[in-house]
Amino acid sequence: MLSKNTLKFIKSLQQKKFRKIEGSFFVEGSKNVTELLNSDFISTHLLFTDKFYSGNQAMVDNFPGQAIHVTQKVLESAGAFKSNDSALAVAKIKENIEISVKDNEWAIALDDVRDPGNLGTIIRIADWYGIQKIILSEESADFYNPKVLQASMGSFSRIKFFYTDLSIFFSKTQLPIYGAFLNGSSIYNTPFDKGGILLVGNESKGISTELEKSVHHKITIPRFGHAESLNVAIATAVFCDNIKRSNS
Amino acid sequence: MLSKNTLKFIKSLQQKKFRKIEGSFFVEGSKNVTELLNSDFISTHLLFTDKFYSGNQAMVDNFPGQAIHVTQKVLESAGAFKSNDSALAVAKIKENIEISVKDNEWAIALDDVRDPGNLGTIIRIADWYGIQKIILSEESADFYNPKVLQASMGSFSRIKFFYTDLSIFFSKTQLPIYGAFLNGSSIYNTPFDKGGILLVGNESKGISTELEKSVHHKITIPRFGHAESLNVAIATAVFCDNIKRSNS
Repeated sequence: MLSKNTLKFIKSLQQKKFRKIEGSFFVEGSKNVTELLNSDFISTHLLFTDKFYSGNQAMVDNFPGQAIHVTQKVLESAGAFKSNDSALAVAKIKENIEISVKDNEWAIALDDVRDPGNLGTIIRIADWYGIQKIILSEESADFYNPKVLQASMGSFSRIKFFYTDLSIFFSKTQLPIYGAFLNGSSIYNTPFDKGGILLVGNESKGISTELEKSVHHKITIPRFGHAESLNVAIATAVFCDNIKRSNS
Repeated sequence: MLSKNTLKFIKSLQQKKFRKIEGSFFVEGSKNVTELLNSDFISTHLLFTDKFYSGNQAMVDNFPGQAIHVTQKVLESAGAFKSNDSALAVAKIKENIEISVKDNEWAIALDDVRDPGNLGTIIRIADWYGIQKIILSEESADFYNPKVLQASMGSFSRIKFFYTDLSIFFSKTQLPIYGAFLNGSSIYNTPFDKGGILLVGNESKGISTELEKSVHHKITIPRFGHAESLNVAIATAVFCDNIKRSNS
């Protein structure tokens, strides 16, 4: 049975402040929960319904932490989803450890991408294009926000990420930095290196003037019509597609 | 002053049923309102704050319908936005008139894209890539849904659209139909014609088996990593980018 204290603990993790204090986060829904349980995250609690159990018996029976059978109603009271008939799992937040990007590898850097839906979608895009590392400015949305994890559709479990001061990070890398601007060179004519960092900026302000100095190649998606801009996740997908096409 | 009846009328337009009965819809926020007023839509009501008036005096003074000065509080009570300090405008819904796609033109067809945010984002993408026509199955999201218009970021005013039975529409066109599938040919190797129709499917079910029969070219975005799929709006952007690149 789910105790009042555990319920309170899980609900508190919707807020960044309590995720930090507890060093824990949760994910919801069958897809995200199974991806979490198959990853190297350390899971501590699993709330599951009959429905989830019937499809994932071994996973539940072998769960190393506290596995708690619940009704759909209780499950929905614990999480952030309006509707959830399968499962919710709590896991430990990973340490924010510096990651290095290899010479022949691509990574994405986010300068204050604040919308959780955008960050989650970018994580899913990175995972589609086989880009395994994301470097985030400290003002970017929190990776462990339930909306980020939901929008990532399970891809959060395969991406390495690091929150840092991007200008310091850039000063230490030898890789070329490609920055997304509205007035750069066309990506159709850009020869992308085998490795590099794709830097995209804030939803309304774009890339900060400070970080602009670190950019080696200003790049732009050609526009054929009249929309003023593209959403940051949409633009990231188009950049990744052009990078991978050029490298494949 | 805003009468109780007008307020009630505007609020009712959040529901598709009342949009149909009244033959009217509304948009909110400075960007969407100015785009609407600069388009060929027939606007009937304009609610504006001091702030909007100071930046758009001529537009307000020359408004052909009923221009009503309101406070931000009243404005927010009328619309669907949580916060709106500028304007809201009501306009007449256009008749659903069949559109034709020329031989050297590209159009997008949507098979039951039901999420309003996805439809709005696709409208913005189409407008960026200079694709001016969207054909929608009757079960697709409503173009005039406030969430669609908001996500379109003003691009709704530049796109022609037509709701119809797609299989009938396809039976009447000579254009090649390119359908988005997970097991088609790579878009990197697809020679796109000068004109055609890009067909994308429902968020969870993809393209229906009935419509699959009308598709001439099954196409796929190459995957380099492990995400199971891409969001439909993200995929549409990548397809449009490859089509336009191939044609430019």
